[in-house]
Amino acid sequence: MDKKKNISMAVIRRLPKYHRYLEELLKSDVDRISSKELSEKIGFTASQIRQDLNCFGDFGQQGYGYNVKDLCREIDNILGLTKTYNTIIVGAGNIGQAIANYINFQKMGFDLKAIFDINPKLIGLKIQDVEVQDVDNIDKYLQNNRIDIGIICVPSKNAQKVCDIIVKNNVNGIWNFAPVDLLIPENVIVENVHLSESLLTLSCLMQEVNKGQEE
Amino acid sequence: MDKKKNISMAVIRRLPKYHRYLEELLKSDVDRISSKELSEKIGFTASQIRQDLNCFGDFGQQGYGYNVKDLCREIDNILGLTKTYNTIIVGAGNIGQAIANYINFQKMGFDLKAIFDINPKLIGLKIQDVEVQDVDNIDKYLQNNRIDIGIICVPSKNAQKVCDIIVKNNVNGIWNFAPVDLLIPENVIVENVHLSESLLTLSCLMQEVNKGQEE
Repeated sequence: MDKKKNISMAVIRRLPKYHRYLEELLKSDVDRISSKELSEKIGFTASQIRQDLNCFGDFGQQGYGYNVKDLCREIDNILGLTKTYNTIIVGAGNIGQAIANYINFQKMGFDLKAIFDINPKLIGLKIQDVEVQDVDNIDKYLQNNRIDIGIICVPSKNAQKVCDIIVKNNVNGIWNFAPVDLLIPENVIVENVHLSESLLTLSCLMQEVNKGQEE
Repeated sequence: MDKKKNISMAVIRRLPKYHRYLEELLKSDVDRISSKELSEKIGFTASQIRQDLNCFGDFGQQGYGYNVKDLCREIDNILGLTKTYNTIIVGAGNIGQAIANYINFQKMGFDLKAIFDINPKLIGLKIQDVEVQDVDNIDKYLQNNRIDIGIICVPSKNAQKVCDIIVKNNVNGIWNFAPVDLLIPENVIVENVHLSESLLTLSCLMQEVNKGQEE
C-alpha cells in the first residue's frame, strides 16, 4: 500500500487521461503496450509515463511493457471508479440540467440522487427520473440521505451559502461550476469547473498567437 | 510592448482569476489595492502577484499599491476582452444548449453566430434567437462567415471530423467539450473542458483524503 501514498497532484491530474486511453486500448483488445507506444498515443514522454505509473506499483516489465488490463484496473482503483458515489445537483439551470442529463456520469458510478432549485418553475420538473425539489428542503434531505458529492450549479452569489449547507451535512466532495472560490474545511475536496475562465484563457492564447504572427 | 511578450502559460492560466477579483473590486468602488490585500482575497502570495503583474507593465507603486482600474483595463487587454469574437457551437445537445444559453459569454464579447447539429429533431430549434442548422451546412457557412472560435460539443467519435472542417475554414480557436485530444495545426489554439476528467480528479482526491484519515 505504501506505493500508493504521496501521489502528487500533477500525477492525479494526469490519471483521468491515462484512464481514457487505457479504456480505448481495452476496447480495441490490446493486451499490452510499451511506454513508448503509450507515449505516442497520449502525448506524454515515455519517461514521464514510466515515472507516473511507477508511483502506484510495478506494472511495467522490461521488454514486455504494461499489461493493459491490470494497469486499467489499478488506475480505476486509484481514481475511485470501483465505488459508487451518491450525488446531488443544486441549481437546475442550463449547466445543472446538462450535468443531470449527462448519462456517462451514471455509467462511471456517479449516481444522481436529488436535484434542487429555488425557481418555482423548475421545481417538480423531472430530469432523468429525478424530480427537482425546492432548495429549502436540502438541509433536511441531507440529514436523511448519505451523499458523497454536491454539484453546485447556482449563481455566484448563492454558491457559498449552498456550499456551507452541503458541507455541514458531511458531504466531502464539491464539484463547483459557480465562478467563485468556495471557502471549505480542510477535509472537503473542491474541484472547480470555471467555464468563463476557460474561455478567457482561450481568447488570451489566441491574442498571443496573433501578436506573434504580426511581429 | 516588449513587456507583454513571453507571458508564461502559468501566468495566462491565472489571469482570468485576477480579472474576476479585480472586476469585483471595481464594482465595490475600490480604487487601489496592495499586493498584500489582493493576496488575502485571491489566495496567491503577494510576491507571486507582484511577479505576475510585473510581466505586463509597471502598475504597482511602492507604498501605493495597484490602481485597480488601470490594472483591470490592462488585464482585459491581455485577455482579449476588448474585442468581439464570433463563435459557433457544433452539437446542440445538453452541453451545447447550456453554453448557448449562458448569456454571460455574450456579455464578455463572445457572440454566438450559429449552432449546428446532426439530429433532425434539433434542427430548426431556436436557442437565444439562433436557429440550429443542419451540420451538413457548416462548411458552406464557414466559407461565407468569419468565425473566430468553434465550440465543439459533439460526441467523441465526431469531434475530430468537426474540428478538421472548422480549422480548414481558418477558425483559429477551438473550445472543446468532447472527451478527446484533437489534432490541430500549430497556429490553432485548443482549450479543453473535459468534464469527466474533472469529476474523476474529484473522486480520486476524495479517495486520497479518505485513505489519509483511515491510516
